[in-house]
Amino acid sequence: MPDEDAATVATLMAEADLQGSDGHGVTRLPQYARRIKAGGFNVRPDIRVVHDQISTAVVNGDNGMGHLVMKRAAGIAIDKARTTGIAWVNSQFSNHAGPASLYATMPLAHDMIGLYFAVGNANHLPPWGGLDMLLSTNPIAAAIPAGEEKPIVLDMATTVAAYGKVKTKALRGETMPEGWMIDREGKPLTDPKRADEGMLLPLGGMEAGYKGYGLAMIIGLLAGTLGGAAMGRDVIDFNHDDDSVTNTGQAIAAINIAAFGDVAVFKRSVDALVRDFRNSNRIPGVDRILVPGERSHETRASRTRLGIPIAAALLRGLDQVADDLGIAKLV
Amino acid sequence: MPDEDAATVATLMAEADLQGSDGHGVTRLPQYARRIKAGGFNVRPDIRVVHDQISTAVVNGDNGMGHLVMKRAAGIAIDKARTTGIAWVNSQFSNHAGPASLYATMPLAHDMIGLYFAVGNANHLPPWGGLDMLLSTNPIAAAIPAGEEKPIVLDMATTVAAYGKVKTKALRGETMPEGWMIDREGKPLTDPKRADEGMLLPLGGMEAGYKGYGLAMIIGLLAGTLGGAAMGRDVIDFNHDDDSVTNTGQAIAAINIAAFGDVAVFKRSVDALVRDFRNSNRIPGVDRILVPGERSHETRASRTRLGIPIAAALLRGLDQVADDLGIAKLV
Repeated sequence: MPDEDAATVATLMAEADLQGSDGHGVTRLPQYARRIKAGGFNVRPDIRVVHDQISTAVVNGDNGMGHLVMKRAAGIAIDKARTTGIAWVNSQFSNHAGPASLYATMPLAHDMIGLYFAVGNANHLPPWGGLDMLLSTNPIAAAIPAGEEKPIVLDMATTVAAYGKVKTKALRGETMPEGWMIDREGKPLTDPKRADEGMLLPLGGMEAGYKGYGLAMIIGLLAGTLGGAAMGRDVIDFNHDDDSVTNTGQAIAAINIAAFGDVAVFKRSVDALVRDFRNSNRIPGVDRILVPGERSHETRASRTRLGIPIAAALLRGLDQVADDLGIAKLV
Repeated sequence: MPDEDAATVATLMAEADLQGSDGHGVTRLPQYARRIKAGGFNVRPDIRVVHDQISTAVVNGDNGMGHLVMKRAAGIAIDKARTTGIAWVNSQFSNHAGPASLYATMPLAHDMIGLYFAVGNANHLPPWGGLDMLLSTNPIAAAIPAGEEKPIVLDMATTVAAYGKVKTKALRGETMPEGWMIDREGKPLTDPKRADEGMLLPLGGMEAGYKGYGLAMIIGLLAGTLGGAAMGRDVIDFNHDDDSVTNTGQAIAAINIAAFGDVAVFKRSVDALVRDFRNSNRIPGVDRILVPGERSHETRASRTRLGIPIAAALLRGLDQVADDLGIAKLV
């Protein structure tokens, strides 16, 4: 992989760890390295625009790493939105790109709102009432600039729990709360070691999961089908497949606040909202009210200062990769 | 109100009832009539574009009825998206406009995807962990064209239950399931007659309600703050106030599928997805798998044939309005 591309991917992976998206940062390196060796990533992709309109584009990632594809797509969206007010760019033949918020936050520096949608890289979610795994945990992210306050950044899977949280529970030997998963009879599944026998519940859970199911489907259509990328039965489970082309799809929108009014007024309004929320009276026992993204901003600040903690098991995995590649180990 | 405007509002209200959005159709007429009499709606509004960019606009509704404002906004979005690929239009000084799906579906006839976001007209939702009512049930709607299948239409409040469902439970003397509302101690509230003492739970409920809270906040920022409309503490509770200007905000986006590839290919992909979902194996006891909007399409078909059922209490309310206005009663 060209040095410049490797540096871009490494920077974005480190950004993910910095902000606390531990499931999407360096923890993915062993898998990425395996996929590169198996030929599942194109390390010299010709990333190019295949459809172009005044305020839209489709970027073909040529099966390159998703970080490269979506950084390019975000740049195009920002450029277009400068003059048009909004732009929307889809990817096709992209790959896993890390946490959704990495890209949703790129427009912020240009006084723009960012929206990001992605088709996840493994289907763990059936239609509501169904058993066939036709949907992923398709995430949505949104980033809104503020003035004196930190930007508001939402980044969420459309299931009650992301699949990574299930894997973490299994590693720790803990049980899951009821409401994360159900088995094929529709009964609660709480043993994470039996996750393969069950299904994630869409956001809303048993009571209103049809809403999360609807969101996951719409996000898949916007991020996948619209751009000619995989969705539904075409999605490759990249946890169990190192060499197939995934044709991953993502979509990013940049909304230029200046097109809608005075940017300073907007930012003051966002600041006032954040403070109203933060200062709300609280339910007894609640210490603090957070706005979306606040925890990530704090994690980023403390990890920038203190460094990123790496679990022993991950460190061993990284050293194994180094060994395989014949390069220096970390410890 | 000019005849043409009255006909537009009446048509959209009837459309709401036809598709089964009973809480947003003719049931609102007594309240609308009361608000018109109290001077809370401007019946001769100068609805105008106050910010205009290549792919965006802000429409000032001049406190006219929301149906008029958002029909205009949708038309502008569709016109712009024809040449630019996507357009996004916000409203300010708009009002309640009925169900979100009415407007999200308007781009469909032009082979466009519609997205719609709105700030609700009463705050029943606090920040996660909070007690201050700073958010409404801010809905999101999305409409995706299909080929031989009906379009996929999602229309959902970002709370577990819409407030209208609570009111219906109260009218029927039924209790609510746990998970719809909590009281000010954070305990489940199941008596709908005590709804004023409690708060709706955001989508995700006790387990993951911080996600629904985040969605409600982002939708409010996109539909309200971005367009210079009310959000947070500025939202007027129009159930308890007939004369204040609500400065309601909504946003609509139209995405032109032709800008992203071949429209026929897209529609075939959507058809295939719908069929895969519908034909999925089912959890024991589940009769049928639905895609978003399917129930509404069926309700629309049957009500077009058989008429719209009107509850006795609503009929009495409508006759009361007729009496007050000195016009012919319905029965």
